[in-house]
Amino acid sequence: MSVAIVGAGPGDPGLVTVKALRLVRGCEVLVYDRLVSDELVLEAVGAARISRDGLNQDEVNELLVHHGRRGRRVVRLKGGDPFVFGRGFEEVEALAAAGVEYEVVPGVSTLTALPGLAGIPLTSREVAQQVTVLTGTNADGTELDYARLAATPGTLVIFMGLRRLEHIADGLILAGRSVDEGAAVVSRVSLPGAEVRVASLGTIAAAARGLRSPAVAVVGDVVHHAANLRQLVETAAS
Amino acid sequence: MSVAIVGAGPGDPGLVTVKALRLVRGCEVLVYDRLVSDELVLEAVGAARISRDGLNQDEVNELLVHHGRRGRRVVRLKGGDPFVFGRGFEEVEALAAAGVEYEVVPGVSTLTALPGLAGIPLTSREVAQQVTVLTGTNADGTELDYARLAATPGTLVIFMGLRRLEHIADGLILAGRSVDEGAAVVSRVSLPGAEVRVASLGTIAAAARGLRSPAVAVVGDVVHHAANLRQLVETAAS
Repeated sequence: MSVAIVGAGPGDPGLVTVKALRLVRGCEVLVYDRLVSDELVLEAVGAARISRDGLNQDEVNELLVHHGRRGRRVVRLKGGDPFVFGRGFEEVEALAAAGVEYEVVPGVSTLTALPGLAGIPLTSREVAQQVTVLTGTNADGTELDYARLAATPGTLVIFMGLRRLEHIADGLILAGRSVDEGAAVVSRVSLPGAEVRVASLGTIAAAARGLRSPAVAVVGDVVHHAANLRQLVETAAS
Repeated sequence: MSVAIVGAGPGDPGLVTVKALRLVRGCEVLVYDRLVSDELVLEAVGAARISRDGLNQDEVNELLVHHGRRGRRVVRLKGGDPFVFGRGFEEVEALAAAGVEYEVVPGVSTLTALPGLAGIPLTSREVAQQVTVLTGTNADGTELDYARLAATPGTLVIFMGLRRLEHIADGLILAGRSVDEGAAVVSRVSLPGAEVRVASLGTIAAAARGLRSPAVAVVGDVVHHAANLRQLVETAAS
Protein backbone atom coordinates (compact mmCIF):
# COMPACT_ATOMS: atom_id res chain seq x y z
CA MET A 1 0.00 0.00 0.00
CA SER A 2 1.57 3.24 -1.06
CA VAL A 3 -0.26 5.98 0.87
CA ALA A 4 -1.67 5.45 4.36
CA ILE A 5 -4.04 8.05 5.77
CA VAL A 6 -3.61 7.64 9.48
CA GLY A 7 -5.44 9.09 12.50
CA ALA A 8 -2.96 10.09 15.20
CA GLY A 9 -5.52 10.29 18.02
CA PRO A 10 -6.29 13.25 20.29
CA GLY A 11 -2.66 14.10 21.10
CA ASP A 12 -1.21 11.74 23.74
CA PRO A 13 1.37 9.71 21.75
CA GLY A 14 0.33 6.61 23.75
CA LEU A 15 -3.09 6.84 22.12
CA VAL A 16 -1.77 6.17 18.63
CA THR A 17 -2.59 2.69 17.32
CA VAL A 18 -0.03 -0.08 16.98
CA LYS A 19 -0.59 -0.14 13.22
CA ALA A 20 -0.20 3.64 12.90
CA LEU A 21 3.11 3.58 14.78
CA ARG A 22 4.40 0.74 12.60
CA LEU A 23 3.51 2.69 9.44
CA VAL A 24 5.09 5.93 10.74
CA ARG A 25 8.32 4.11 11.62
CA GLY A 26 8.52 2.52 8.18
CA CYS A 27 7.53 5.43 5.95
CA GLU A 28 9.63 7.38 3.45
CA VAL A 29 7.47 10.51 3.39
CA LEU A 30 5.49 11.81 6.38
CA VAL A 31 2.95 14.61 5.92
CA TYR A 32 1.68 15.68 9.35
CA ASP A 33 -0.83 18.07 10.92
CA ARG A 34 0.02 20.73 13.48
CA LEU A 35 -1.90 18.86 16.20
CA VAL A 36 0.25 15.74 15.93
CA SER A 37 2.78 15.36 18.78
CA ASP A 38 6.48 15.97 18.07
CA GLU A 39 7.21 12.65 19.74
CA LEU A 40 5.24 10.83 17.08
CA VAL A 41 6.69 12.83 14.17
CA LEU A 42 10.19 11.96 15.37
CA GLU A 43 9.35 8.24 15.09
CA ALA A 44 9.57 8.65 11.30
CA VAL A 45 13.33 8.25 11.39
CA GLY A 46 14.92 8.81 8.00
CA ALA A 47 11.70 9.96 6.36
CA ALA A 48 11.14 13.29 4.64
CA ARG A 49 8.96 15.01 7.23
CA ILE A 50 6.62 17.62 5.79
CA SER A 51 4.39 19.79 7.94
CA ARG A 52 0.97 20.44 6.52
CA ASP A 53 1.06 23.99 7.99
CA GLY A 54 0.82 26.60 5.28
CA LEU A 55 -0.40 24.16 2.61
CA ASN A 56 -3.97 24.29 1.40
CA GLN A 57 -6.01 21.13 0.89
CA ASP A 58 -5.31 20.94 -2.85
CA GLU A 59 -1.56 21.17 -2.21
CA VAL A 60 -1.77 18.37 0.37
CA ASN A 61 -3.71 16.22 -2.10
CA GLU A 62 -1.10 16.90 -4.81
CA LEU A 63 1.74 16.05 -2.46
CA LEU A 64 0.17 12.70 -1.57
CA VAL A 65 -0.56 11.88 -5.21
CA HIS A 66 2.94 12.95 -6.29
CA HIS A 67 4.80 10.69 -3.86
CA GLY A 68 2.17 7.94 -4.05
CA ARG A 69 2.54 7.70 -7.84
CA ARG A 70 6.26 7.14 -7.40
CA GLY A 71 5.48 4.16 -5.15
CA ARG A 72 6.93 5.75 -2.04
CA ARG A 73 5.69 4.65 1.36
CA VAL A 74 3.74 7.77 2.36
CA VAL A 75 2.02 8.36 5.71
CA ARG A 76 -0.47 11.20 6.02
CA LEU A 77 -0.71 11.64 9.80
CA LYS A 78 -3.83 13.50 10.88
CA GLY A 79 -4.67 14.86 14.32
CA GLY A 80 -8.09 15.35 15.83
CA ASP A 81 -11.05 13.77 14.11
CA PRO A 82 -10.01 13.67 10.45
CA PHE A 83 -12.99 11.68 9.26
CA VAL A 84 -15.80 13.03 11.37
CA PHE A 85 -15.51 16.67 10.29
CA GLY A 86 -12.05 16.77 8.80
CA ARG A 87 -11.15 16.52 5.19
CA GLY A 88 -9.68 13.03 5.27
CA PHE A 89 -12.25 11.89 2.80
CA GLU A 90 -11.15 14.48 0.25
CA GLU A 91 -7.65 13.03 0.39
CA VAL A 92 -9.02 9.54 -0.13
CA GLU A 93 -10.97 10.75 -3.16
CA ALA A 94 -7.94 12.52 -4.64
CA LEU A 95 -5.85 9.36 -4.32
CA ALA A 96 -8.58 7.17 -5.78
CA ALA A 97 -9.06 9.56 -8.70
CA ALA A 98 -5.31 9.44 -9.41
CA GLY A 99 -5.26 5.65 -9.24
CA VAL A 100 -2.89 5.61 -6.26
CA GLU A 101 -3.27 2.73 -3.83
CA TYR A 102 -4.08 3.81 -0.31
CA GLU A 103 -5.35 2.56 3.00
CA VAL A 104 -6.97 4.30 5.94
CA VAL A 105 -6.08 3.66 9.58
CA PRO A 106 -8.65 5.21 11.92
CA GLY A 107 -7.51 6.72 15.21
CA VAL A 108 -8.95 7.38 18.65
CA SER A 109 -11.38 10.28 18.30
CA THR A 110 -11.80 13.15 20.70
CA LEU A 111 -15.42 12.07 20.93
CA THR A 112 -14.63 8.67 22.42
CA ALA A 113 -11.94 10.17 24.62
CA LEU A 114 -14.44 12.44 26.38
CA PRO A 115 -16.10 9.88 28.66
CA GLY A 116 -12.89 8.21 29.68
CA LEU A 117 -10.57 11.18 29.93
CA ALA A 118 -12.96 13.98 30.89
CA GLY A 119 -15.42 11.96 32.94
CA ILE A 120 -18.38 12.90 30.77
CA PRO A 121 -20.50 10.02 29.45
CA LEU A 122 -22.15 10.87 26.14
CA THR A 123 -25.28 8.88 26.80
CA SER A 124 -26.87 7.68 30.00
CA ARG A 125 -29.89 5.60 30.76
CA GLU A 126 -31.53 8.42 32.68
CA VAL A 127 -30.81 11.62 30.81
CA ALA A 128 -29.63 11.01 27.24
CA GLN A 129 -30.31 8.17 24.83
CA GLN A 130 -28.47 9.68 21.87
CA VAL A 131 -25.66 12.06 21.03
CA THR A 132 -25.48 14.56 18.18
CA VAL A 133 -22.11 15.76 16.97
CA LEU A 134 -21.61 18.99 15.03
CA THR A 135 -19.14 21.83 14.50
CA GLY A 136 -19.56 25.35 15.81
CA THR A 137 -19.66 26.68 12.26
CA ASN A 138 -21.36 24.93 9.38
CA ALA A 139 -18.99 23.85 6.64
CA ASP A 140 -20.93 25.93 4.11
CA GLY A 141 -20.69 29.06 6.30
CA THR A 142 -24.40 29.18 7.13
CA GLU A 143 -25.65 29.75 10.69
CA LEU A 144 -26.48 26.70 12.83
CA ASP A 145 -30.15 25.74 12.86
CA TYR A 146 -30.80 26.57 16.53
CA ALA A 147 -34.50 25.77 16.43
CA ARG A 148 -33.80 22.19 15.34
CA LEU A 149 -30.77 21.80 17.59
CA ALA A 150 -32.75 23.01 20.60
CA ALA A 151 -35.42 20.40 19.82
CA THR A 152 -32.87 17.59 19.43
CA PRO A 153 -33.05 15.22 22.40
CA GLY A 154 -29.93 13.84 24.06
CA THR A 155 -26.42 15.24 24.28
CA LEU A 156 -24.88 17.77 21.88
CA VAL A 157 -21.14 17.68 21.26
CA ILE A 158 -19.76 20.74 19.48
CA PHE A 159 -16.32 20.65 17.88
CA MET A 160 -14.39 23.80 17.01
CA GLY A 161 -16.94 25.99 18.79
CA LEU A 162 -14.74 27.58 21.46
CA ARG A 163 -14.51 31.03 19.89
CA ARG A 164 -18.24 31.17 19.15
CA LEU A 165 -19.35 29.56 22.40
CA GLU A 166 -21.26 32.54 23.76
CA HIS A 167 -23.08 32.97 20.45
CA ILE A 168 -23.94 29.24 20.30
CA ALA A 169 -25.15 29.09 23.92
CA ASP A 170 -27.30 32.18 23.34
CA GLY A 171 -28.72 30.67 20.16
CA LEU A 172 -29.73 27.47 21.96
CA ILE A 173 -31.28 29.38 24.88
CA LEU A 174 -33.24 31.72 22.62
CA ALA A 175 -34.51 28.66 20.75
CA GLY A 176 -35.82 27.15 23.96
CA ARG A 177 -33.08 25.27 25.84
CA SER A 178 -32.94 25.97 29.56
CA VAL A 179 -30.21 28.29 30.90
CA ASP A 180 -29.81 25.74 33.70
CA GLU A 181 -29.07 22.78 31.43
CA GLY A 182 -25.62 21.29 31.97
CA ALA A 183 -22.75 22.35 29.74
CA ALA A 184 -19.02 21.69 29.78
CA VAL A 185 -15.94 22.54 27.80
CA VAL A 186 -13.08 20.08 27.54
CA SER A 187 -9.78 21.60 26.44
CA ARG A 188 -6.79 19.66 25.15
CA VAL A 189 -8.13 16.23 26.07
CA SER A 190 -5.30 13.68 26.57
CA LEU A 191 -2.65 16.45 26.29
CA PRO A 192 -0.63 18.14 29.04
CA GLY A 193 -2.70 21.00 30.45
CA ALA A 194 -5.99 19.20 29.77
CA GLU A 195 -8.83 21.01 31.50
CA VAL A 196 -12.56 20.46 31.99
CA ARG A 197 -14.95 23.22 33.05
CA VAL A 198 -18.51 22.32 33.98
CA ALA A 199 -21.21 24.98 34.21
CA SER A 200 -24.70 25.56 32.83
CA LEU A 201 -25.70 26.65 29.36
CA GLY A 202 -26.22 30.18 30.71
CA THR A 203 -22.77 30.41 32.27
CA ILE A 204 -20.56 28.18 30.12
CA ALA A 205 -19.16 30.94 27.91
CA ALA A 206 -17.88 32.84 30.94
CA ALA A 207 -16.64 29.63 32.60
CA ALA A 208 -14.67 28.62 29.51
CA ARG A 209 -12.81 31.91 29.19
CA GLY A 210 -9.07 31.41 28.83
CA LEU A 211 -9.25 27.76 27.77
CA ARG A 212 -6.99 26.76 24.91
CA SER A 213 -7.76 24.96 21.65
CA PRO A 214 -8.42 22.28 20.67
CA ALA A 215 -11.58 22.25 22.75
CA VAL A 216 -14.94 20.53 22.57
CA ALA A 217 -18.18 21.71 24.15
CA VAL A 218 -20.77 19.31 25.56
CA VAL A 219 -24.36 20.41 26.16
CA GLY A 220 -26.66 18.19 28.21
CA ASP A 221 -27.21 16.94 31.69
CA VAL A 222 -24.73 14.10 31.20
CA VAL A 223 -22.06 16.61 32.28
CA HIS A 224 -23.39 16.34 35.83
CA HIS A 225 -22.38 12.68 35.84
CA ALA A 226 -18.79 13.82 35.74
CA ALA A 227 -18.36 12.62 39.31
CA ASN A 228 -14.76 11.61 39.03
CA LEU A 229 -13.63 14.45 36.89
CA ARG A 230 -10.64 15.57 38.84
CA GLN A 231 -9.02 12.16 39.07
CA LEU A 232 -9.58 11.45 35.40
CA VAL A 233 -8.23 14.74 34.15
CA GLU A 234 -5.20 14.56 36.38
CA THR A 235 -4.51 11.08 35.04
CA ALA A 236 -4.89 12.31 31.51
CA ALA A 237 -2.50 15.18 32.05
CA SER A 238 0.13 13.16 33.90
CA MET B 1 -2.58 2.81 38.72
CA SER B 2 -4.29 -0.38 39.78
CA VAL B 3 -7.18 -0.86 37.35
CA ALA B 4 -7.08 0.28 33.72
CA ILE B 5 -10.31 0.33 31.75
CA VAL B 6 -9.14 -0.04 28.20
CA GLY B 7 -10.87 0.22 24.83
CA ALA B 8 -9.68 -2.53 22.48
CA GLY B 9 -10.95 -0.91 19.27
CA PRO B 10 -13.34 -2.37 16.71
CA GLY B 11 -11.60 -5.76 16.43
CA ASP B 12 -8.46 -5.59 14.26
CA PRO B 13 -5.63 -6.12 16.78
CA GLY B 14 -3.57 -3.51 14.90
CA LEU B 15 -6.13 -0.91 15.91
CA VAL B 16 -5.38 -1.21 19.63
CA THR B 17 -3.43 1.73 21.05
CA VAL B 18 0.24 1.56 22.00
CA LYS B 19 -0.69 2.32 25.62
CA ALA B 20 -3.38 -0.36 25.71
CA LEU B 21 -0.99 -3.00 24.40
CA ARG B 22 1.65 -2.03 27.00
CA LEU B 23 -0.92 -2.33 29.79
CA VAL B 24 -2.21 -5.70 28.53
CA ARG B 25 1.32 -7.10 28.32
CA GLY B 26 2.10 -5.98 31.87
CA CYS B 27 -1.10 -6.88 33.66
CA GLU B 28 -1.71 -9.55 36.31
CA VAL B 29 -5.46 -9.87 35.77
CA LEU B 30 -7.20 -9.42 32.41
CA VAL B 31 -11.00 -9.21 32.23
CA TYR B 32 -12.05 -9.19 28.58
CA ASP B 33 -15.17 -8.91 26.43
CA ARG B 34 -16.27 -11.45 23.86
CA LEU B 35 -15.58 -9.01 21.00
CA VAL B 36 -11.89 -8.65 21.86
CA SER B 37 -9.57 -10.57 19.51
CA ASP B 38 -7.86 -13.74 20.76
CA GLU B 39 -4.58 -12.32 19.50
CA LEU B 40 -4.85 -9.44 21.94
CA VAL B 41 -5.96 -11.59 24.86
CA LEU B 42 -2.92 -13.83 24.34
CA GLU B 43 -0.64 -10.79 24.77
CA ALA B 44 -1.44 -10.93 28.49
CA VAL B 45 1.22 -13.57 29.06
CA GLY B 46 1.21 -14.89 32.61
CA ALA B 47 -1.93 -13.00 33.62
CA ALA B 48 -5.11 -14.56 34.95
CA ARG B 49 -7.38 -14.19 31.89
CA ILE B 50 -11.05 -13.95 32.74
CA SER B 51 -13.75 -13.77 30.06
CA ARG B 52 -16.61 -11.46 30.87
CA ASP B 53 -19.03 -13.88 29.17
CA GLY B 54 -21.63 -15.16 31.58
CA LEU B 55 -20.96 -12.47 34.18
CA ASN B 56 -23.48 -9.71 34.77
CA GLN B 57 -22.39 -6.09 35.19
CA ASP B 58 -22.43 -6.23 39.01
CA GLU B 59 -20.19 -9.28 38.96
CA VAL B 60 -17.73 -7.55 36.63
CA ASN B 61 -17.68 -4.50 38.90
CA GLU B 62 -17.04 -6.74 41.94
CA LEU B 63 -14.23 -8.55 40.16
CA LEU B 64 -12.48 -5.29 39.29
CA VAL B 65 -12.91 -3.91 42.82
CA HIS B 66 -11.74 -7.19 44.36
CA HIS B 67 -8.46 -7.37 42.45
CA GLY B 68 -8.00 -3.60 42.43
CA ARG B 69 -8.21 -3.43 46.24
CA ARG B 70 -5.41 -5.97 46.44
CA GLY B 71 -3.23 -3.66 44.36
CA ARG B 72 -3.05 -6.01 41.41
CA ARG B 73 -2.43 -4.62 37.93
CA VAL B 74 -5.84 -5.20 36.38
CA VAL B 75 -6.82 -4.50 32.78
CA ARG B 76 -10.48 -4.43 31.84
CA LEU B 77 -10.36 -4.82 28.06
CA LYS B 78 -13.53 -3.70 26.33
CA GLY B 79 -14.55 -4.21 22.71
CA GLY B 80 -16.78 -2.00 20.63
CA ASP B 81 -17.69 1.42 21.97
CA PRO B 82 -17.57 0.97 25.74
CA PHE B 83 -18.08 4.63 26.56
CA VAL B 84 -20.50 5.76 23.91
CA PHE B 85 -23.28 3.32 24.76
CA GLY B 86 -21.48 0.72 26.78
CA ARG B 87 -21.33 0.44 30.49
CA GLY B 88 -17.73 1.52 30.94
CA PHE B 89 -18.84 4.42 33.03
CA GLU B 90 -20.57 2.12 35.52
CA GLU B 91 -17.27 0.34 36.07
CA VAL B 92 -15.52 3.67 36.63
CA GLU B 93 -18.17 4.61 39.18
CA ALA B 94 -17.89 1.28 41.00
CA LEU B 95 -14.12 1.66 41.28
CA ALA B 96 -14.36 5.28 42.43
CA ALA B 97 -16.98 4.35 45.04
CA ALA B 98 -14.70 1.60 46.37
CA GLY B 99 -11.71 3.96 46.50
CA VAL B 100 -9.72 1.95 43.96
CA GLU B 101 -7.34 3.88 41.72
CA TYR B 102 -8.08 3.55 38.05
CA GLU B 103 -7.38 5.06 34.70
CA VAL B 104 -9.23 4.96 31.40
CA VAL B 105 -7.60 4.39 28.01
CA PRO B 106 -10.00 5.20 25.16
CA GLY B 107 -9.90 3.12 22.01
CA VAL B 108 -10.75 3.53 18.34
CA SER B 109 -14.53 3.58 18.08
CA THR B 110 -16.61 1.90 15.41
CA LEU B 111 -17.98 5.35 14.67
CA THR B 112 -14.63 6.79 13.61
CA ALA B 113 -13.76 3.58 11.77
CA LEU B 114 -16.76 3.93 9.46
CA PRO B 115 -15.46 6.65 7.14
CA GLY B 116 -12.01 5.16 6.80
CA LEU B 117 -12.83 1.48 6.68
CA ALA B 118 -16.29 1.44 5.13
CA GLY B 119 -15.91 4.47 2.88
CA ILE B 120 -18.83 6.33 4.45
CA PRO B 121 -18.13 9.87 5.62
CA LEU B 122 -20.36 10.87 8.53
CA THR B 123 -20.67 14.49 7.52
CA SER B 124 -20.21 16.22 4.20
CA ARG B 125 -20.36 19.82 3.12
CA GLU B 126 -23.22 19.11 0.74
CA VAL B 127 -25.54 16.68 2.46
CA ALA B 128 -24.93 16.44 6.20
CA GLN B 129 -23.54 18.95 8.68
CA GLN B 130 -24.05 16.82 11.77
CA VAL B 131 -24.29 13.20 12.88
CA THR B 132 -26.57 11.72 15.52
CA VAL B 133 -25.61 8.45 17.17
CA LEU B 134 -28.10 6.17 18.90
CA THR B 135 -28.84 2.51 19.62
CA GLY B 136 -31.58 0.49 17.98
CA THR B 137 -33.25 0.00 21.35
CA ASN B 138 -33.44 2.65 24.05
CA ALA B 139 -31.59 1.70 27.21
CA ASP B 140 -34.80 2.08 29.22
CA GLY B 141 -36.69 -0.26 26.88
CA THR B 142 -38.96 2.45 25.42
CA GLU B 143 -39.58 2.77 21.68
CA LEU B 144 -37.40 5.18 19.67
CA ASP B 145 -38.93 8.62 19.11
CA TYR B 146 -39.36 8.30 15.33
CA ALA B 147 -41.05 11.68 14.88
CA ARG B 148 -38.04 13.48 16.36
CA LEU B 149 -35.50 11.23 14.65
CA ALA B 150 -37.15 11.73 11.28
CA ALA B 151 -36.93 15.52 11.83
CA THR B 152 -33.25 15.37 12.84
CA PRO B 153 -31.06 16.78 10.09
CA GLY B 154 -27.80 15.12 9.07
CA THR B 155 -26.67 11.52 9.33
CA LEU B 156 -28.05 8.92 11.74
CA VAL B 157 -25.77 6.14 12.97
CA ILE B 158 -27.57 3.29 14.70
CA PHE B 159 -25.63 0.82 16.83
CA MET B 160 -27.02 -2.58 17.77
CA GLY B 161 -29.96 -2.18 15.42
CA LEU B 162 -29.41 -5.07 13.03
CA ARG B 163 -32.18 -7.32 14.35
CA ARG B 164 -34.70 -4.49 14.45
CA LEU B 165 -33.61 -2.86 11.21
CA GLU B 166 -36.86 -3.40 9.31
CA HIS B 167 -38.86 -2.01 12.24
CA ILE B 168 -36.55 1.04 12.53
CA ALA B 169 -36.58 1.79 8.80
CA ASP B 170 -40.39 1.51 8.75
CA GLY B 171 -40.62 3.82 11.77
CA LEU B 172 -38.49 6.48 10.09
CA ILE B 173 -40.43 6.23 6.81
CA LEU B 174 -43.83 6.42 8.53
CA ALA B 175 -42.57 9.50 10.39
CA GLY B 176 -41.70 11.22 7.15
CA ARG B 177 -38.25 10.15 5.90
CA SER B 178 -38.07 9.30 2.22
CA VAL B 179 -37.97 5.63 1.16
CA ASP B 180 -35.27 6.73 -1.31
CA GLU B 181 -32.91 8.21 1.26
CA GLY B 182 -29.55 6.47 1.40
CA ALA B 183 -28.97 3.76 3.99
CA ALA B 184 -26.14 1.30 4.62
CA VAL B 185 -25.22 -1.45 7.00
CA VAL B 186 -21.60 -2.08 7.92
CA SER B 187 -20.92 -5.49 9.42
CA ARG B 188 -17.79 -6.46 11.36
CA VAL B 189 -15.83 -3.31 10.48
CA SER B 190 -12.02 -3.91 10.65
CA LEU B 191 -12.56 -7.67 11.13
CA PRO B 192 -12.15 -10.54 8.64
CA GLY B 193 -15.40 -10.85 6.69
CA ALA B 194 -16.17 -7.12 6.94
CA GLU B 195 -19.03 -6.23 4.65
CA VAL B 196 -20.85 -3.06 3.58
CA ARG B 197 -24.26 -3.05 1.94
CA VAL B 198 -25.62 0.18 0.52
CA ALA B 199 -29.29 0.57 -0.36
CA SER B 200 -32.13 2.98 0.38
CA LEU B 201 -34.15 3.33 3.55
CA GLY B 202 -36.95 1.39 1.86
CA THR B 203 -34.75 -1.55 0.88
CA ILE B 204 -32.01 -1.65 3.52
CA ALA B 205 -33.64 -4.32 5.72
CA ALA B 206 -33.80 -6.74 2.78
CA ALA B 207 -30.31 -5.78 1.62
CA ALA B 208 -28.83 -6.41 5.05
CA ARG B 209 -30.24 -9.92 5.42
CA GLY B 210 -27.61 -12.44 6.42
CA LEU B 211 -25.09 -9.91 7.73
CA ARG B 212 -23.40 -10.78 10.98
CA SER B 213 -23.03 -8.79 14.21
CA PRO B 214 -21.54 -6.50 15.26
CA ALA B 215 -23.12 -4.21 12.70
CA VAL B 216 -23.92 -0.53 12.46
CA ALA B 217 -26.57 1.10 10.29
CA VAL B 218 -26.08 4.49 8.68
CA VAL B 219 -29.05 6.51 7.40
CA GLY B 220 -28.44 9.53 5.20
CA ASP B 221 -27.25 10.48 1.76
CA VAL B 222 -23.60 10.39 2.88
CA VAL B 223 -23.71 6.68 2.05
CA HIS B 224 -23.75 7.60 -1.64
CA HIS B 225 -20.31 9.15 -1.17
CA ALA B 226 -18.96 5.68 -0.57
CA ALA B 227 -17.15 5.84 -3.88
CA ASN B 228 -14.24 3.67 -2.97
CA LEU B 229 -16.09 1.17 -0.91
CA ARG B 230 -14.73 -1.98 -2.41
CA GLN B 231 -11.09 -1.04 -2.10
CA LEU B 232 -11.51 0.11 1.48
CA VAL B 233 -13.40 -2.92 2.67
CA GLU B 234 -10.99 -5.30 1.00
CA THR B 235 -8.13 -3.50 2.71
CA ALA B 236 -9.90 -3.70 6.04
CA ALA B 237 -10.53 -7.41 5.69
CA SER B 238 -7.05 -8.31 4.47
